[in-house]
Amino acid sequence: MKQALITIDQISDTGAATVDFFGRPAPRLTLVSHALCPYVQRAAIMLAEKALPFERREVDLANKPGWFMSVSPLGKTPVLLVDGEAIFESAVICEYLDEAFAPRLHPAEALERARHRSWVEFGSSVLNAIAAFYNAPDEQALQACAAVLRSRFERIEATLAEGPYFAGSRFCIVDAVFAPVFRYFDCIDRIDDFGFWPGLPKLLAWRTALAERPSVASAVAPDYRSLLERFIWERGSVLSRRLR
Amino acid sequence: MKQALITIDQISDTGAATVDFFGRPAPRLTLVSHALCPYVQRAAIMLAEKALPFERREVDLANKPGWFMSVSPLGKTPVLLVDGEAIFESAVICEYLDEAFAPRLHPAEALERARHRSWVEFGSSVLNAIAAFYNAPDEQALQACAAVLRSRFERIEATLAEGPYFAGSRFCIVDAVFAPVFRYFDCIDRIDDFGFWPGLPKLLAWRTALAERPSVASAVAPDYRSLLERFIWERGSVLSRRLR
Repeated sequence: MKQALITIDQISDTGAATVDFFGRPAPRLTLVSHALCPYVQRAAIMLAEKALPFERREVDLANKPGWFMSVSPLGKTPVLLVDGEAIFESAVICEYLDEAFAPRLHPAEALERARHRSWVEFGSSVLNAIAAFYNAPDEQALQACAAVLRSRFERIEATLAEGPYFAGSRFCIVDAVFAPVFRYFDCIDRIDDFGFWPGLPKLLAWRTALAERPSVASAVAPDYRSLLERFIWERGSVLSRRLR
Repeated sequence: MKQALITIDQISDTGAATVDFFGRPAPRLTLVSHALCPYVQRAAIMLAEKALPFERREVDLANKPGWFMSVSPLGKTPVLLVDGEAIFESAVICEYLDEAFAPRLHPAEALERARHRSWVEFGSSVLNAIAAFYNAPDEQALQACAAVLRSRFERIEATLAEGPYFAGSRFCIVDAVFAPVFRYFDCIDRIDDFGFWPGLPKLLAWRTALAERPSVASAVAPDYRSLLERFIWERGSVLSRRLR
């Protein structure tokens, strides 16, 4: 039942965002986390973009403690505790943080906001495809998963506009969702060339812009990459065997 | 490449909701649908609650036509076309309809709204568990899936308050999400008693209240139950074999 309470690991320099949109003191925020969870990263990026102080509480997903199951009905990370009340599911947490704390990252117009939310869900489907890729049991399955990923990336390329971010010059929630997607490939690209990137200049520029964003860089610990490599190694998959 | 264009199958009696929150004429709405899709039902219920006229366009998910893949990047129903622009993913469609057209079904307060959105996601997890249940290949898997469903229902029972709806007297988006969940059991309960319901009085009262709601009743066609029985029959699962 391993768990660690890490106190206030991200505090605003200015303290500017310690009140909500209504001028009320910001609630006490605890992000229930796992070091490698891409959905946790979404929430951590949102919190950093809003310059909100929060505690990060790590949970061992291989051995889920009782307190975790009581706040996470589906047994998943992240959970955001807001003055002790649990919000579960990362997209929900992002929406809450955006509606309660400035600056607003979603578009102001309802239809455009819906379009962004659709691409948030698309981002989740890419994460599912990445998991299938690193778990693929044989070469044929790996190549099939790689083809799915490539087609997802081509679809995104056709959607991107000027950049540097998803919707232009302003960072938005879709950016917070895709930053953890691209982070996987900092590791995967070192294992082999799977042909993901040729002919996708907008996607690559977006990936670069996201990696340089301070909120993205700070959303994982310094040992993230070595932890991810160990995690892939432990899959026992065809990608594991290519790792060394 | 079977597809049917069904024109305006739900029109408000009063025509009250033909403008949006800003007094602009309502856009032309097309719900890209499948007769059995529970996620489509969410959107159909929302449209009925808002008394919004819309077209329903059925798609053959076993043989997806090109026009469908161009508006549904993940190849899933529902898609809502808003003056031709595609919004995909049912939760996103529900949010859009709620933000653009009265009456508002989500709570006004951000944290309470987040709580509702968390339970929308929980509703999706129950739908996944139902699919695992009707696809279970053997008796042991079927019983394991039944146990998951029972535990989900117990969790909901512990969350429900006074009723008749999720949040009390007012119908909300969580209601639109769980109505299609319970509809499956109008069929499953006729196949056998899997012990889902004992000791869950609030859940059963909620199920009854939802079934009686006109928007819920009208969200599927009259032949829904026979189509669902045929669908389960065709699974080749242990539940299929219990069907007759």
